[in-house]
Amino acid sequence: MMLEDLHDAALAARLQHKLDRKTKPVGALGRLEALALQIGLVLGSETPRLEAPQLLVCAGDHGLAARGVSAYPSDVTWQMVENFLAGGAAVSVLARQHGLALTVADCGVRHDFAPRPGLLVRKLGPGTADSLEGPAMTAAQCEQAIANGRDIVRSLPGNALLLGEMGIGNSSAAALLLARIAGLDIDACTGPGTGLDEAGVARKRGVLRGVLQRHAKATTPLAALAAFGGFEIATLVGAVLQAADERRVIVLDGFISGAAVLVAQALRRQVVQRCIAAHQSAEPGHAAMLAHLGLAPFLRLDLRLGEGSGAALAWPLLESACRVLAEMASFDSAGVSQGVAQPA
Amino acid sequence: MMLEDLHDAALAARLQHKLDRKTKPVGALGRLEALALQIGLVLGSETPRLEAPQLLVCAGDHGLAARGVSAYPSDVTWQMVENFLAGGAAVSVLARQHGLALTVADCGVRHDFAPRPGLLVRKLGPGTADSLEGPAMTAAQCEQAIANGRDIVRSLPGNALLLGEMGIGNSSAAALLLARIAGLDIDACTGPGTGLDEAGVARKRGVLRGVLQRHAKATTPLAALAAFGGFEIATLVGAVLQAADERRVIVLDGFISGAAVLVAQALRRQVVQRCIAAHQSAEPGHAAMLAHLGLAPFLRLDLRLGEGSGAALAWPLLESACRVLAEMASFDSAGVSQGVAQPA
Repeated sequence: MMLEDLHDAALAARLQHKLDRKTKPVGALGRLEALALQIGLVLGSETPRLEAPQLLVCAGDHGLAARGVSAYPSDVTWQMVENFLAGGAAVSVLARQHGLALTVADCGVRHDFAPRPGLLVRKLGPGTADSLEGPAMTAAQCEQAIANGRDIVRSLPGNALLLGEMGIGNSSAAALLLARIAGLDIDACTGPGTGLDEAGVARKRGVLRGVLQRHAKATTPLAALAAFGGFEIATLVGAVLQAADERRVIVLDGFISGAAVLVAQALRRQVVQRCIAAHQSAEPGHAAMLAHLGLAPFLRLDLRLGEGSGAALAWPLLESACRVLAEMASFDSAGVSQGVAQPA
Repeated sequence: MMLEDLHDAALAARLQHKLDRKTKPVGALGRLEALALQIGLVLGSETPRLEAPQLLVCAGDHGLAARGVSAYPSDVTWQMVENFLAGGAAVSVLARQHGLALTVADCGVRHDFAPRPGLLVRKLGPGTADSLEGPAMTAAQCEQAIANGRDIVRSLPGNALLLGEMGIGNSSAAALLLARIAGLDIDACTGPGTGLDEAGVARKRGVLRGVLQRHAKATTPLAALAAFGGFEIATLVGAVLQAADERRVIVLDGFISGAAVLVAQALRRQVVQRCIAAHQSAEPGHAAMLAHLGLAPFLRLDLRLGEGSGAALAWPLLESACRVLAEMASFDSAGVSQGVAQPA
């Protein structure tokens, strides 16, 4: 099934004309204008309105974490899910600030959560299998995770989806997906994640080289996703595909949510037309990932937290872009003179 | 009179400790953490709260504009002031979005405005004099403009000041101030402003070289300010000095408001401790200006509008920084495990 191509030349021209008639020199709002144009194209409107934005945080554990690829123990995954739901995590605070509805999905955390509002249990297992031993998940689990992601987004209101994730070890899965799908050297894709020291990064690189070799035949996007994991990334892939089908605006966060978009884009070429890169993180592979996706980040704050925190921080820029289209006066309506080169 | 030095080592240590205990890897919120630390130091609190933020737009006309140094005619200054007050300009829209109180000060626009709420008339004259002929303003006008800026801020509530400006021709005054105060070549300080083409920039450079030569003896900050103007920049200098005295957080906008901070910093060494560079604009001299001030910009959106639009766009990041300090859980309060290097 092909995704709809959003390159609507007539609408793009109308949006550009509208921006150019606003009371400012042509292009003076810089990248905010390009953002307004893109949101207009995604939502199919000259006056796009962002409605009921949803921040979806997918969580899962990773078998590979036992190999020492993270600075934190796996238990931090479920502890942070509790923290998200209790409102004390960075993403909770930022979502509250910007009126973003926060949904946390347990896609495969090694812990049983008590049910409560804001938590969806879509568990594929108690963490993925160790990808150095075999595939992180079965093809059936991978398919189910993607279906879960689609279902979750289908059940959420609004026309904008912000991506978030939690999973100790998941910068390894993201690095493996980037190396395989973009054809990059694994060393360039591997970084400190939550905070490994140099020796830790060297050890992580060694482990990931082994995992790549172990799954040399996993060359299709879905085979790579199943081989490397994780459950939370696969669920995000489904969420991104569904949001793209429904023409929602999709706001990326950092390195791990970007890996989900990388897979989704490999499956459906037009996904990135709906995508906005909130920021470029401190994780070294993130710049290469965004370049491969053809996306230019809006913030460069050296974030390396994930959770959707960067997506939430960039959200007001999207709101501003829409308000510029909707609320700014035009030269005609405001009676402001047009630019003219003055005689010397 | 010396400004208070905000380098309070004990408070800085308490703020850093508080940030490090939040439920995230140490430093994972990147530059947002440095921002939180700075705001805490300016407001003298471990839990700083931004209150009643004020966006002050100072407007004035420039005699030099008749020399063809801008892509727009001088009438645009007063027309845009009307647009600010009517709510249709970019800065009006963005201030509304973020709950920033907008005050427009007529510091010397070549137009008589009908009085109305939100407009302060602090006029020094109907635009500055042509700085190629003589000083843009007298020493007495310059002194009065600074006093006006101080008075304006003294009359405004809150603990944060966002800087904005409007004045056709004022990127020329800002370039001249940058060249003189930072000791840079005028060509490197001169750019297209609101949108001159290459020939226009070349003509502008020629005019500004002449102005610099004409005022070779204006080497002190105040002499340079009087020589080059403008009334709106001098009023902003006063506003910045008063805000610094009162330990308000000061948010810079682009090239022109930055020139006011450059003068204020040259007069009082500690001013930049209170200053946050909202963004780096598309104007070529802005990077050098921020480097001279020792400030690192938060946004790079290729804005070149002024008005305070970039300051308003960055505002939510300041709010986020404060919320991180006030609302995020600590490892202890949330029961989250600390980072440990996992065995391989």
